Amino acid sequence: MTRRRAAGRVVLLSGGLDSSTVLALARARAGPLHALTIGYGQRHRRELRAARAIAAHFGVDRHVVLDLPLGPLLPSALTDRRRGIPARGRRDRIPATYVPARNTIFLALALGYAEANGLTEIWIGANAVDYSGYPDCRPAYLRAFEAMAGRATRAAVERGERVRIRAPLLRLSKASIVAAGERRGVPWGLTWSCYRGGRRPCGRCDSCLFRARGFRVAGIPDPLVREGGSRGR
Amino acid sequence: MTRRRAAGRVVLLSGGLDSSTVLALARARAGPLHALTIGYGQRHRRELRAARAIAAHFGVDRHVVLDLPLGPLLPSALTDRRRGIPARGRRDRIPATYVPARNTIFLALALGYAEANGLTEIWIGANAVDYSGYPDCRPAYLRAFEAMAGRATRAAVERGERVRIRAPLLRLSKASIVAAGERRGVPWGLTWSCYRGGRRPCGRCDSCLFRARGFRVAGIPDPLVREGGSRGR
Repeated sequence: MTRRRAAGRVVLLSGGLDSSTVLALARARAGPLHALTIGYGQRHRRELRAARAIAAHFGVDRHVVLDLPLGPLLPSALTDRRRGIPARGRRDRIPATYVPARNTIFLALALGYAEANGLTEIWIGANAVDYSGYPDCRPAYLRAFEAMAGRATRAAVERGERVRIRAPLLRLSKASIVAAGERRGVPWGLTWSCYRGGRRPCGRCDSCLFRARGFRVAGIPDPLVREGGSRGR
Repeated sequence: MTRRRAAGRVVLLSGGLDSSTVLALARARAGPLHALTIGYGQRHRRELRAARAIAAHFGVDRHVVLDLPLGPLLPSALTDRRRGIPARGRRDRIPATYVPARNTIFLALALGYAEANGLTEIWIGANAVDYSGYPDCRPAYLRAFEAMAGRATRAAVERGERVRIRAPLLRLSKASIVAAGERRGVPWGLTWSCYRGGRRPCGRCDSCLFRARGFRVAGIPDPLVREGGSRGR
């Protein structure tokens, strides 16, 4: 069976600021656009709701939400209810919220999805500037994953159709990400960044602090904060 | 926090002939021994039962069974009830039972598990001889995964503790695998290879045919067949 090479892409979408901006950037390209959201025993469902709203907003061709019971596999502050979320991690170490091999697991699932659906690009919101503490957000890691993917799939081995990893935010500051998302019309009020799952962002976790700084430096108001954490529609 | 490097390992265990032999080989080494079994929307639970029995037989330190709802993500004869299992695939193509990126997903999950538990080796029953049709069973693929893993984890980046991929069956024929497992006391009657999930192996799918040939050439009786597919205890 021969199939014409599709220039389609799948975006790993958490519903946060970064991945929502990535989806907006991918939306501007021609070709099929899918979104893949992976829950992995998170402390809350708030993120999954945000992902669904963002995917609907941008009208993706298909949005798949996988809720995987990885909690027992991967102890971390983000998956274990008994651990607290650190208020603000030291910047010289990988944060306690690090989930072992998280992006490797996500990219592996996206690779399977891409191959099953004839898509040739995986877009991910990895960022090596503000989150440089995560090893699996660094350029060398992403290049190594892409090289591995080139040997992993039937499409690559039989037809030379290699899947590419696109990380358009890799070297952007948080403020530049906010500015890029603003240009592409990301509905910030639908996104969710806080590690906690309350009605409004906690304002104290790493993710809230990075987000606040990004909006502040970009000179753009964050509707989630301005409207006190309501859905912001 | 510093931790002494543990020479522990995790074995990807399906409960089939190959991975059970890998577990037997790993059992002979010193150090912690874990087993990780991943269900992914299989057509039957027979394999998971076999994995539990094998893990118990070899007395692993911990056996984690993850049942992941990957069926919708990865259409394939093995995950989709609407497709039939092919009787015997042509040998010059990747079989229809191929699950996109399966080993990449399994190894990624094992990588997270290894890092979370301070283990430094992942053992997998990949075999490039009888199953050469699967791209993710080839030596170049496994090397590429190991290289990627060396950049993926906190343990690797912060402490230089790279996780190694061990595939001791990679270049063995099925008969050699049976002989190796026999020497290490694999209880064949507890294993399960058939792609179908009936009370007895179907004897017609690729997996049954490879198994039968392996036992025949090794000159060892297969208790599953001899006893008509009963549990063989």
